[in-house]
Amino acid sequence: MKLDLHGGLLALEKGGTLREVQVAYETWGERRGNNVVYVCHALTGDSHVTGRLADGSQVEGWWENYVGPGKPIDTDRYFIVCSNILGGCMGTTGPASTDPETGRAYGVDFPEITLRDITEVQRRLLTQLGVDHAYAVVGGSLGAMNTLQWAVSHPGFVDKVICIAGTKSLSAMNLAFDVVGREMILRDPGWSGGHYHGTERRPDNGLAVARMLAHITYLSEKAMERKFGREEKTVAPATIFHTAFQVESYLHHQGSKFVDRFDANSYLYITKAMDEFDITAGIRPPHRVFEPSTADFLVVGLSSDWLFPPDESREIAEILLRAGKNVTFCEIDCEHGHDAFLMENPHLMALLSTFLEGHDSRHPEPVATVSGDAASRALAARTEAVIQTLLPAQGRIIDLGCGTGDLLHTYSEASDSDAQGIDIDVANVLECNRRQIPVFQTDLDEGLSMIPDDFYDVAVLSSTLQQVVRPHAVVREMLRVAKRGIVSFPNMAHWHNRLQLFLFGRVPVSPALAHTWYDTPNLHFLSLSDFTAFCRSEGIRVKAAHALGYGLISSILTAIGLKNIGGDVVVVEIERP
Amino acid sequence: MKLDLHGGLLALEKGGTLREVQVAYETWGERRGNNVVYVCHALTGDSHVTGRLADGSQVEGWWENYVGPGKPIDTDRYFIVCSNILGGCMGTTGPASTDPETGRAYGVDFPEITLRDITEVQRRLLTQLGVDHAYAVVGGSLGAMNTLQWAVSHPGFVDKVICIAGTKSLSAMNLAFDVVGREMILRDPGWSGGHYHGTERRPDNGLAVARMLAHITYLSEKAMERKFGREEKTVAPATIFHTAFQVESYLHHQGSKFVDRFDANSYLYITKAMDEFDITAGIRPPHRVFEPSTADFLVVGLSSDWLFPPDESREIAEILLRAGKNVTFCEIDCEHGHDAFLMENPHLMALLSTFLEGHDSRHPEPVATVSGDAASRALAARTEAVIQTLLPAQGRIIDLGCGTGDLLHTYSEASDSDAQGIDIDVANVLECNRRQIPVFQTDLDEGLSMIPDDFYDVAVLSSTLQQVVRPHAVVREMLRVAKRGIVSFPNMAHWHNRLQLFLFGRVPVSPALAHTWYDTPNLHFLSLSDFTAFCRSEGIRVKAAHALGYGLISSILTAIGLKNIGGDVVVVEIERP
Repeated sequence: MKLDLHGGLLALEKGGTLREVQVAYETWGERRGNNVVYVCHALTGDSHVTGRLADGSQVEGWWENYVGPGKPIDTDRYFIVCSNILGGCMGTTGPASTDPETGRAYGVDFPEITLRDITEVQRRLLTQLGVDHAYAVVGGSLGAMNTLQWAVSHPGFVDKVICIAGTKSLSAMNLAFDVVGREMILRDPGWSGGHYHGTERRPDNGLAVARMLAHITYLSEKAMERKFGREEKTVAPATIFHTAFQVESYLHHQGSKFVDRFDANSYLYITKAMDEFDITAGIRPPHRVFEPSTADFLVVGLSSDWLFPPDESREIAEILLRAGKNVTFCEIDCEHGHDAFLMENPHLMALLSTFLEGHDSRHPEPVATVSGDAASRALAARTEAVIQTLLPAQGRIIDLGCGTGDLLHTYSEASDSDAQGIDIDVANVLECNRRQIPVFQTDLDEGLSMIPDDFYDVAVLSSTLQQVVRPHAVVREMLRVAKRGIVSFPNMAHWHNRLQLFLFGRVPVSPALAHTWYDTPNLHFLSLSDFTAFCRSEGIRVKAAHALGYGLISSILTAIGLKNIGGDVVVVEIERP
Repeated sequence: MKLDLHGGLLALEKGGTLREVQVAYETWGERRGNNVVYVCHALTGDSHVTGRLADGSQVEGWWENYVGPGKPIDTDRYFIVCSNILGGCMGTTGPASTDPETGRAYGVDFPEITLRDITEVQRRLLTQLGVDHAYAVVGGSLGAMNTLQWAVSHPGFVDKVICIAGTKSLSAMNLAFDVVGREMILRDPGWSGGHYHGTERRPDNGLAVARMLAHITYLSEKAMERKFGREEKTVAPATIFHTAFQVESYLHHQGSKFVDRFDANSYLYITKAMDEFDITAGIRPPHRVFEPSTADFLVVGLSSDWLFPPDESREIAEILLRAGKNVTFCEIDCEHGHDAFLMENPHLMALLSTFLEGHDSRHPEPVATVSGDAASRALAARTEAVIQTLLPAQGRIIDLGCGTGDLLHTYSEASDSDAQGIDIDVANVLECNRRQIPVFQTDLDEGLSMIPDDFYDVAVLSSTLQQVVRPHAVVREMLRVAKRGIVSFPNMAHWHNRLQLFLFGRVPVSPALAHTWYDTPNLHFLSLSDFTAFCRSEGIRVKAAHALGYGLISSILTAIGLKNIGGDVVVVEIERP
């Protein structure tokens, strides 16, 4: 489709202009209310995400695993749009397109472009399609940066942003690989100063080797090792400087396939735009760039991605959290490196599906994961009920070690307060996501540096204190991000525990401490007295302590105030002085 | 020096021959008894390791930080030799040398070479220098592979092998980078089919870009981020496809500097030899390749090295361990990536110095690191003494969690048995190394897969069981690698602990459990009864239990057999049934 420029020019961020802009796009599904999902493609992608082409032919799309009927981005449910990006060579105007002023290919006379320009063209396309609001925008890699640009350039346009394996700006190493890739093309005599279009010469050698290099960075070391190892082909290598290793012939194949479908100048323009992308550049503090956005965010990092490491996704999520956005961050375990977002990954599929819809239509509800026997479960339920009564009717709550989000789920349903979860376990993040509870996946022992001081009204640490490595530091962080804290833990000094050690010389096993010494997930053991003594020494105010005992004796003991004897579990309200 | 080929040809592993071999070498220090240290250089290194050149000029050597007077490889103490490798371009015969048959440069008529050929030339050089036995051979990167080849090709030639940041064979990813690097050169029209020597043309573009790429792989992501980040230069970039980022101008500088000093064909030949190096190829089981070697080994991995990841060094060490060698493995913490072995690193310096000499002349003896008060220390000393009495007069002993090696040190001095330590902490590895105790740095929770079944006579697990995450699995592994085990741990059921919990409702703190609940390194708490019950359920035979009490009451209680009441610490002898 030709963009309607209303007789004018498309002005670009770096000062250039374009008189004509052609956009190649495809759509899937039907428009029904607020159901537009815009998909952003990666560096060398195109508009063909999935299914048949317009001419009816079946050509494999680049995201077949994720987009289609019944798939996480469900073509039966959403109206999905994807277009080739500006500067590309798959139908949208780019350096290989004809310059209307000269009648020849632009070549290096094509103006410099940025992610903002790329996004602007996408928005104009949607406008021309009659779309003035999108339900979601989603993308991986360069597409992830594209989604962030959407949130910043058009802050009210979209409800949900899904940003997979991206970065707020490329790292020095990532820049360096791009520099070397471009250099290969620029030093290829076939590049001919960039004006090779329409001549016999092409920088095929440079482009092929740049692609070979890029392919290494898209895979993880482990994935390459498993795919190729040091396996050899039986055919003799071409020269003594070629090896028989399969990895070599694989790379050659990737390189030569690529020069048939991609234009070297597009590669130069787009990688340069990617390198110069820096979504928080010049903004202090950085998170202010996202403040106007009305979207909820899902940010996903891939564990084995070393080109856009998961920590760069985490950094995006941290900035969004500081901007006060609802943000779910998850680092997904995978072995395939950066390219993993293109492959079938059950966790990524579930995350996308549930973030978009609030439930995963292809997976049944998970079985409740509460472990332990009836007594343990009863104690856990009572603990949660006590904590619920201690939460304010309204306010900002964070649950540190939120598990599957039971507490926050009940709380959010009863109030319209903001609730954020923190958990280390992917399975828990998935379940919270299903329940529409924003959850930030991290290890509490790493600290909460992504949360500003006093960001929350209350911080909850329920049945978690005893499982962290540095409880001391975790409590300190907890009372930094919120003035009030609620802590629950199993009480080692419960009478039954005391007797087990005293009379039988055995380390206690009880409803609240339900594991034997060698398979317990608890790293620390403490009593109510230990904890209050700790608070005293730290200058933390203990506002109240609540003891929950299992069985008649315990109940009587707690009722008469012997909390450190009767309490199987204790709930302590603490406050920064 | 010209190698004396005794009128014949140098036959190469792949079938080629050389009629003349020139070797460029340098030496430092004086020969005194068994003090020859041969240093192997890396891919693009040369014979100039340190100090002045023969003509008296001061040119910085590539390993100044490690070789020199008073340095870890001490020129005042050792007679050090380094030569440029075969196929190189720094004085030793290579593809740029003149072929005596044609009077022209070999170019690609130079025969294919291997690490075995490279090592053979080094050995012949030493022979011509009158050296028929070396004290040590040391190298990093390609130099590390070179040291392994020394151990295999000349198993009795050397006493100590130091292998830093190497691999037994390149990973698929490492191969892939080499493939792409070579491809850049081969596709450069200036390469001219390899016969550019003596012509106007040179593959400078290809070689420069190959070097730019290689430079990325030598640094860690973190190091690049810290060195360059996204800092920009103020000078305007050359074209719109060049960025202002400092990392770009740094890489350009590295590339153009390199073409002035290195020959593209040498790069092709040597990287190919490196790619094809596989020290255990065709040997089953792989460790048999090292069985003939009489050397002790120090294998060092660098934490941030992603080109030769530390796990590949660990793999070398594991193979050596299986071959029955004395091997110390240490993964050194560093941020600089692969290149870190060239930089000043106090841990690496201490390791080299102490592995070579048994003490670190530049550092004072470390202060004893035993923590705790007098009571704790007294208990620890008594525990160790009890364990000593339980060890056999002769045999193979492994101490799991050996700490600074106190137990093995005393044991080795009293017997001539083999002793191997395992510890997770670098500081402990350094101290064991200083005491000449071979120690393999690893996390016990990762298992002991590098040790075959029944490899040791006795395995000791002293004051460690309570600090591992999976004690269950660790005990199982322990009794796999040795039929007999000796386990010591603090006894939670000591009377004093019982009373603290029973009477005061506090989690015990005692001489054996010297930490408060929140700062204890112990992850598990157990009593003697807990442990014996565990052994029963696992089918492990408890041969004997010894209790050590602190103070009069405890001593009386243990003396009358109330071990689970009187013992602050218990020592349990277990055996696989």
